[in-house]
Amino acid sequence: MSEYFSKRLKDIMPYTAGEQPQDKKYIKLNTNESPFPPSPFSLRLCRESAGDMLLYPDPEYNSLVKVAAQTWGVNEENLLFTNGSDEALNFAFIAYCDKDTPAVFPDITYGFYPVFAAINCVPKKEIPLKEDYTIDIKDYFNAGGTVFIANPNAPTGIALKKAEIEEIVANNPDNIVVIDEAYVDFGAESCVGLIDKYDNLIVTQTFSKSRSLAGARVGVAIASAALIGDLKTVKYSTNPYNLSRTSAAAGIGALLDEEYFNDNCEKIIEAREFFVKKLVGLGFSVLPSKANFVFAKYKDICGEKLYSELKNRGVLVRFFNKPRLKDFIRITIGTKSDMEKTVETVSEILKVIK
Amino acid sequence: MSEYFSKRLKDIMPYTAGEQPQDKKYIKLNTNESPFPPSPFSLRLCRESAGDMLLYPDPEYNSLVKVAAQTWGVNEENLLFTNGSDEALNFAFIAYCDKDTPAVFPDITYGFYPVFAAINCVPKKEIPLKEDYTIDIKDYFNAGGTVFIANPNAPTGIALKKAEIEEIVANNPDNIVVIDEAYVDFGAESCVGLIDKYDNLIVTQTFSKSRSLAGARVGVAIASAALIGDLKTVKYSTNPYNLSRTSAAAGIGALLDEEYFNDNCEKIIEAREFFVKKLVGLGFSVLPSKANFVFAKYKDICGEKLYSELKNRGVLVRFFNKPRLKDFIRITIGTKSDMEKTVETVSEILKVIK
Repeated sequence: MSEYFSKRLKDIMPYTAGEQPQDKKYIKLNTNESPFPPSPFSLRLCRESAGDMLLYPDPEYNSLVKVAAQTWGVNEENLLFTNGSDEALNFAFIAYCDKDTPAVFPDITYGFYPVFAAINCVPKKEIPLKEDYTIDIKDYFNAGGTVFIANPNAPTGIALKKAEIEEIVANNPDNIVVIDEAYVDFGAESCVGLIDKYDNLIVTQTFSKSRSLAGARVGVAIASAALIGDLKTVKYSTNPYNLSRTSAAAGIGALLDEEYFNDNCEKIIEAREFFVKKLVGLGFSVLPSKANFVFAKYKDICGEKLYSELKNRGVLVRFFNKPRLKDFIRITIGTKSDMEKTVETVSEILKVIK
Repeated sequence: MSEYFSKRLKDIMPYTAGEQPQDKKYIKLNTNESPFPPSPFSLRLCRESAGDMLLYPDPEYNSLVKVAAQTWGVNEENLLFTNGSDEALNFAFIAYCDKDTPAVFPDITYGFYPVFAAINCVPKKEIPLKEDYTIDIKDYFNAGGTVFIANPNAPTGIALKKAEIEEIVANNPDNIVVIDEAYVDFGAESCVGLIDKYDNLIVTQTFSKSRSLAGARVGVAIASAALIGDLKTVKYSTNPYNLSRTSAAAGIGALLDEEYFNDNCEKIIEAREFFVKKLVGLGFSVLPSKANFVFAKYKDICGEKLYSELKNRGVLVRFFNKPRLKDFIRITIGTKSDMEKTVETVSEILKVIK
């Protein structure tokens, strides 16, 4: 850091994103992207829109919002699109956390929450997961701050039921509850249907996983009109034109091509169930995942060792060098064929290192 | 605002962007976009990259950075790409302003600076422009805060010379000076060449004006490696993948197609000089502009009146309902033909309202 950097941020530890290798070809199972290309309709709209790039986008992204309102069965005023769902989450930290309102989230969850708290100089309250890596919902009742819960959680993949989330929301009348549904499309229950009932609930989703658009940077916040109004205040105070024209167009195509989306989600779920069964057969412990990744460990072999053995053999996964996580690797679910090859590779490794 | 919105931000007034009409066709001279389409090479790279949207972008945007280093004659470590230059400016507010370090800028300038100060809860010090709407550089010596100067300034279009900016930078050894060069390519002198000499200088530029990519959201910060490191800390604490793949690809094309860029800048300058001469001939006062817009007033007719008369006749410009600005309209420079039509329309209006 330079000598000019604000002292208030001197201890900040930025988020570490997963590797994005630019050279060697891997079976890339480290950043929870989709193994399937963007839908053909999404690609067509994206490419067609490029010619209009000389003009700023519509900052309200009305065409995208109109289609999204249909998709999620909400009103247009319930939607705000963002530059990835990270931006939606950051907006919520800015709008709803301050020195008197901490951010409240599990000790094991999406690693960006503590960073958002730090960059916005707001206190955080981290609540330990239970021994089995699940959330005890009662820990979040009347949380005394703004609650952030990833559902399914990362990197565990474990999901709460909609009814459990509803209990958390209902028991926080004075606090905002943000449900980060980045991975919801792979078998968990969405809480979007609750936004009409609760004016303290924000649901965020991303097009980076189930909709094959990680490279387009499209996220969305879904909430009551009043909360969306708050988030728009933040957007119009930081970056009014937050999505590019081509990304907004790609987003429209991804939403309209519902069959492609549903097929891909089913394929991922099927590949996940196949993969989990094989891993368990090989002696792994695997947390019960509703996401497009699994969190797995093998006896006393640490995550870092498994990660590097896999990387040496052309399979890129992720490990987290932290207490309670360091024995695990997180493996994104790719195509069935990716997972078959990964099972073979894992078997080879076990033969060598057992 | 909802009852949940943080009290610290309760007085915030978000930035008001210019209208982006979605229906009627106007001669659109209100948001300083380029009238020329993106370069053919930019379009080609953009469309080719769309197929890769399933994967996150390289968060370092190395391919783009490599080309940009050539363009600006700097090292790769001197560059950070952002989601429009607004994001670069906001990063600078986050990194270099705090309760003890106000943001210092002219009272008449880009309307987003006070909003960035407000959203980041940092004090601001606004220094009045001189009677003739120019900046007195001595006002900024040892400014006691982080200096933000748009050069050319908006909405006046008036530019400082590079030597004058250098005096400001040299006379602020303890402060960061941010030079916002959104409009620099239309006849002003860039300060990029000074970044090697001064470790307290940040230059920001945008691809939204001279490079015909307002819809792609591409901005850049150029500074010493240490300052770029600071800004990266902020980026990796808010939104690591801040540009879409298609936007980064479009940016590469825009930089490589230098002839197209130079031709377009020349055409704009030519159209501006033509237009200013005509306006002056019609009795307007026009501030001396080095930007792709002019700031002009006609005797005692207020800006709002001129704006609405022009809008009624299909020409969209911008006015600012603020002291010292309300007599003016800001007119973006389009093609020569756009400006000829605008001159005709202005003449018609003067006949009616004189």
